[in-house]
Amino acid sequence: MVELDDDAMTRFPVPDEDELPADLRERIEEETERSGFTPNVFAAFAYKPSHFRAFFDYHDALVDDTALDREEVEMIVVAVSGVNHCYYCNVAHGALVRIYAKDPTLADQLVANYRQADISEKRMAMLDVAVKLTESPREVTEDDLDRLAEVGYSEEAMWDIASVTAFFNLSNRMAMFADMRPNDEFHSLGRTQNVDSDK
Amino acid sequence: MVELDDDAMTRFPVPDEDELPADLRERIEEETERSGFTPNVFAAFAYKPSHFRAFFDYHDALVDDTALDREEVEMIVVAVSGVNHCYYCNVAHGALVRIYAKDPTLADQLVANYRQADISEKRMAMLDVAVKLTESPREVTEDDLDRLAEVGYSEEAMWDIASVTAFFNLSNRMAMFADMRPNDEFHSLGRTQNVDSDK
Amino acid sequence: MVELDDDAMTRFPVPDEDELPADLRERIEEETERSGFTPNVFAAFAYKPSHFRAFFDYHDALVDDTALDREEVEMIVVAVSGVNHCYYCNVAHGALVRIYAKDPTLADQLVANYRQADISEKRMAMLDVAVKLTESPREVTEDDLDRLAEVGYSEEAMWDIASVTAFFNLSNRMAMFADMRPNDEFHSLGRTQNVDSDK
Amino acid sequence: MVELDDDAMTRFPVPDEDELPADLRERIEEETERSGFTPNVFAAFAYKPSHFRAFFDYHDALVDDTALDREEVEMIVVAVSGVNHCYYCNVAHGALVRIYAKDPTLADQLVANYRQADISEKRMAMLDVAVKLTESPREVTEDDLDRLAEVGYSEEAMWDIASVTAFFNLSNRMAMFADMRPNDEFHSLGRTQNVDSDK
Amino acid sequence: MVELDDDAMTRFPVPDEDELPADLRERIEEETERSGFTPNVFAAFAYKPSHFRAFFDYHDALVDDTALDREEVEMIVVAVSGVNHCYYCNVAHGALVRIYAKDPTLADQLVANYRQADISEKRMAMLDVAVKLTESPREVTEDDLDRLAEVGYSEEAMWDIASVTAFFNLSNRMAMFADMRPNDEFHSLGRTQNVDSDK
Amino acid sequence: MVELDDDAMTRFPVPDEDELPADLRERIEEETERSGFTPNVFAAFAYKPSHFRAFFDYHDALVDDTALDREEVEMIVVAVSGVNHCYYCNVAHGALVRIYAKDPTLADQLVANYRQADISEKRMAMLDVAVKLTESPREVTEDDLDRLAEVGYSEEAMWDIASVTAFFNLSNRMAMFADMRPNDEFHSLGRTQNVDSDK
Repeated sequence: MVELDDDAMTRFPVPDEDELPADLRERIEEETERSGFTPNVFAAFAYKPSHFRAFFDYHDALVDDTALDREEVEMIVVAVSGVNHCYYCNVAHGALVRIYAKDPTLADQLVANYRQADISEKRMAMLDVAVKLTESPREVTEDDLDRLAEVGYSEEAMWDIASVTAFFNLSNRMAMFADMRPNDEFHSLGRTQNVDSDK
Repeated sequence: MVELDDDAMTRFPVPDEDELPADLRERIEEETERSGFTPNVFAAFAYKPSHFRAFFDYHDALVDDTALDREEVEMIVVAVSGVNHCYYCNVAHGALVRIYAKDPTLADQLVANYRQADISEKRMAMLDVAVKLTESPREVTEDDLDRLAEVGYSEEAMWDIASVTAFFNLSNRMAMFADMRPNDEFHSLGRTQNVDSDK
Repeated sequence: MVELDDDAMTRFPVPDEDELPADLRERIEEETERSGFTPNVFAAFAYKPSHFRAFFDYHDALVDDTALDREEVEMIVVAVSGVNHCYYCNVAHGALVRIYAKDPTLADQLVANYRQADISEKRMAMLDVAVKLTESPREVTEDDLDRLAEVGYSEEAMWDIASVTAFFNLSNRMAMFADMRPNDEFHSLGRTQNVDSDK
Repeated sequence: MVELDDDAMTRFPVPDEDELPADLRERIEEETERSGFTPNVFAAFAYKPSHFRAFFDYHDALVDDTALDREEVEMIVVAVSGVNHCYYCNVAHGALVRIYAKDPTLADQLVANYRQADISEKRMAMLDVAVKLTESPREVTEDDLDRLAEVGYSEEAMWDIASVTAFFNLSNRMAMFADMRPNDEFHSLGRTQNVDSDK
Repeated sequence: MVELDDDAMTRFPVPDEDELPADLRERIEEETERSGFTPNVFAAFAYKPSHFRAFFDYHDALVDDTALDREEVEMIVVAVSGVNHCYYCNVAHGALVRIYAKDPTLADQLVANYRQADISEKRMAMLDVAVKLTESPREVTEDDLDRLAEVGYSEEAMWDIASVTAFFNLSNRMAMFADMRPNDEFHSLGRTQNVDSDK
Repeated sequence: MVELDDDAMTRFPVPDEDELPADLRERIEEETERSGFTPNVFAAFAYKPSHFRAFFDYHDALVDDTALDREEVEMIVVAVSGVNHCYYCNVAHGALVRIYAKDPTLADQLVANYRQADISEKRMAMLDVAVKLTESPREVTEDDLDRLAEVGYSEEAMWDIASVTAFFNLSNRMAMFADMRPNDEFHSLGRTQNVDSDK
C-alpha cells in the first residue's frame, strides 16, 4: 500500500498513487517495506516515470555492484552533499551513515566538515578525492588516483568512488532544484544508543 | 562489428570487444551505426557494465522523453561542461550542438561563455539557470523557476532543464576523473559550411 | 560538581577541574545546572581563562541585551556555522534552534542551506544579510540595511544581527582551529515529538 | 574630556558624550590619553554599551595575556583585515604595525599581500595559518598546527594566533557592516623616518 | 585592400576603412596578407587608434623578442583564455595553437583544461604557473619560479611566461568587454589532417 | 642622471644604468625629473627593453588620450589593484590618487574596498564595472555598459574604463610575478594636510 507525501517537494506536484505505472508502484512498495516508510525522493521522482526508472536503476547499480562497502558509499554521499549544501541528501543519507556505520555522530561530522570526522586515513583519502572531484573537478589529476591506490583502494574501487561522487552531484542538484524535503523519520533515525551499542 | 579505442581514457583500461556482455555490444553497435564511429564514452563506461547500462539508460531517458528540443538539450550540456571544464563533453557535445543547431560557431561560444552566445532570450534564461545550478546550486531559489516560466518553459521543461544539467554534472565528473578523450571525429564534425547552409 | 570532558577538543589539552579559577568554575557550574551537562566549549575555553571570560561575556551580552528574540539569534548562529562548516556550532546550536524554535527539523535545514528553510520572509532577509556578511563582507552595502528595515527590523536589531554574525565568525574559527567536539547530548536534544507538539 | 566623532561610522548614530555610562567614559578617556585622540572604533561601539564592554575586554585579553609579541599581534590583524577588505582595520591597525614594528612600509605590504612582506619565515608561517583560518577555515588541519610548532611557536602561541585571527574576523565584520571610518590620524601615523631610524 | 567586419564586436562601432590612419591601415594590410583575412581584433581596436598601436606593439614585442618558442606562447594564451572564458581568444588563438603545434586537438584540450593536455612536463609546469598567475596572482611565490627553473626555463623565459600571461589577461578583458567575435575562419583553421600529417 | 634601484624587484636583476638603450634612458630621465625620483617600475621593466617600450607606450596612451579625467584613471587603478592584491600598484598609484584627487584618505579606501569610498554615484558605477571586469569578466554583460551610459559615461569613456582596467590586470600580474617593490617615497606622498587644503 503506497502513500506518497504531497509535500515531498515544493516546486513540482507529486503524482497520485493511482496514477503510478506498475513498475514504479512495485519499486516504491519494495522500498517502503524495507524502510518502514516511503522516502520522499521516490515521491519526487515519480513526477516523471522515465527519470524515476533511470535514477533508481543508477542508484541501485552503485550500491549493488561495488568494490566499496556500504558504509563508505554513504560516507561519500554525505560528505559530497555537505559541500553542495543539499538538505534532502544530508538528512536522508545522514540517517544511512548512522545506520551503516553504527555511529550516531559521524553523519553530523560529515555534513559539517569531513576533515574533522573520526575516520581512518584510508577513508580520509577517499573523501579528499570525492570532495575535490565535487568542488574543483578540473584540479583532479593522476596524483589523486595514485594516492587512492597507496591507501589501498583497488582500481575498481576508485571508479566506484568517482561514480558515487558523480551520481550525488546529480542527485543533490535535482533535490535542490525541486526543493525535496526529507521525511521526518530521517532526522532521528539511528541517533539512539541502541544503534551505537553493538559497535 | 564493434571496435573500442584503447585510448578512450587514460586512467582505466578499456575492455576487449569480445569480453563485452551482449547487451552492451548491441547498444554500442547501434550507436556506431548511427554515428559512423564509436564515441569513446561507450568504450570508457564498458569498464563496468552495470554502470554502462545505468549511464546510457539515464542519458536516453533525457533525450527521448523531454519537453525540450534536442538543440536545447545539447546547448545545456555544452554550457555546463564549459564551466566544469570537461574536455570530453565540450568536444563531443560541441559537435552535437553544431549538428542539431546547424550552426558551426555556437558550440565554441557555449564552451567559452554562454553569456556571449547568439541565442534567444528564452534560451539565455535556460542557460542562466543551468549554469547557476551547476556552479552554486544552493543559490537556486523559487525566483529561478519563476523566470523560466515567464520566458515560456512549461513545468515539465523546467524539470528537464534541471535533469540535463544534473546528469552532465555527473557525466563531466566521470569523464574528468577517468580522463576520457574525445574521438578525433568530434573535433571537426559539423564545422563545414554545408551544415550552416540550410539555416 | 564540574567535570570537564578531556575530549572536548583534540588539539589543545583540557585543564583539570581543580585548576580552574573560581569564577570559571562558578560560570561552568551555572551552565551545567541549566543544561544538565557541561557543553564542551566551556571545557575548551578553560584552556586560557582570560579568553574564557572574554568569550562568554561577549556571548552573554549578545543573548541578554538584544532586540532579537532568542530563536532568531540561534537561527543566525546555525546559518552562519553552516556556511563556515563548523561541526561544533552546527550541532550545539542546532540543538538550541530545535529547542527555542520548538521545531525538530529547522536546524538541519539551516545547516544545509538556509534558503530552503521554512521561515518567514522577514527572517529570510535576516539570514540573507547574516550569510552575506559571513561570506563576502565587502559586498555588504547600505542596501542590505535598507532591506532589513523594510522587513521590520529596528536599527538596534540590525546591529544585533551583525553582532551575532560577527561573533560566530570568531567562534566558528576557534572551534575549528581547536577541533572542538560537541557533546553527544547535543546531537539528539530537541528531536523528539514532544518538542514539536506544543507548536 | 572625551569627544566622539559623529562621523565615526555612517550607518548607526554615535551617542553623545554625556550619555555614556561612566565605565565607557573612563575606558575612552584612558585610550584617548594614550593615543592623543579617540579612535573611532570606541565611538562606534559606544552605540551599544554592553557590546562595547564585551568587545574591548576581549581585545584587551588578546593583547595583555599573550604568548605573542605585540608586533606579531598587529601583523596578524592587518594580514587578516587585508584579505577581508576592512577599511577601518587596515588603516587603524596599519598604523599600529608601523609603530610596533618600527617599519613605515610593512603595513602596506600586509594590507596588499602578506606573502610579499619582508618578514621572517617564522612569521610567514604564522600569517599563512592566520589567513587560511580566515579564508577557508574548513581546510585547517593538524598539519597547520604542526607547521607552527616546527617554526617555533608554543602551544599557547598557537591558541593566541587563532584567537587574534578569530577576533578580527569578528571585528572586520562589525566595522564593515557599520561602515566605521578610521580617524585621519591613523593614515599617517608612523610613516615618518624617525620611526624607522631607531631600528 | 582592407575590409573591416562591422560585426567584429557588438558593443562598440567598427570604423570605416577610409577613416583609418595610414599606419593602422598598413599594419592591417600586412596582417591581412599574412593571414588571408583580417582578424576581427584589428577591426575592434581600430575604434581607438592610440590603443590599437599600443596593443599590437605590445603583442609584437611578446612574439618577436622572446625566449619561448611560438608554440609555447600560443599554448599560454589559450590556457589563460580558457580559464578567463574568453570566446574571441579561445577561438582565434586556438587556431594558432593548432597551426604552430601542428596538432588539431591540442587547442580544444587547453580551452577545456590544460591539466588534461598531451604536453611535456616542462610545458605543464609553464601552464601551471601561467594559470596560477591568472587566477590567483597573490598566491604566486618564489617557489613557482624555482619550479620553472628546475624544468629548464631560463630567467628570461620566466619573464616571458609572465608577460604573455599578463598581456592576455588584458586582452581577454578587452575582448570580453567589447564582445569581440572571432572570424569564422578561426573556428576551422588547422583542423584538417594535413596539418597533423607532417608531425 | 638616472639611477636605478637594485631592489626595485626581488626576482629579476635590475640592469646597470649604463647598459640602458638611449630611448629608455631618456624616458626614465623624463619621469625622474617629473617625479623627483625614479619609480621602481621603470627599473624593473628595463630588464627587457622591448617590453619596457611596449608597457610604457600603452600606459601613456591610456593617460594621454582618454575621455576620463586623470583622477578617475587612478581610482580605477587602485580599486583594481586592491582586489588583485598588488603591493606595488596599491602603493605607487595610491600616491597618485592622493595627489590627483587631492584627498589624503581616498587611496586607502580604494585599496581596502571601493564600495566604502567617499565618491559620487557615477564613479561608484565606474568602479563596479572595473572590479567586475577584473574579478569575473565572464559575468560582464550589456547591462553593465547600459549602467555606465545611464550615469553619464560616453561610449569612448566606457572603452577607456575597460582599457585601464585591462591594462592594470596586466600590470598587477607583472609586478606580483617579479615582486616589484614601491619606492619609499610613494608610501607617504600626498598624505599631508596641504594636499587636502585646496579642495
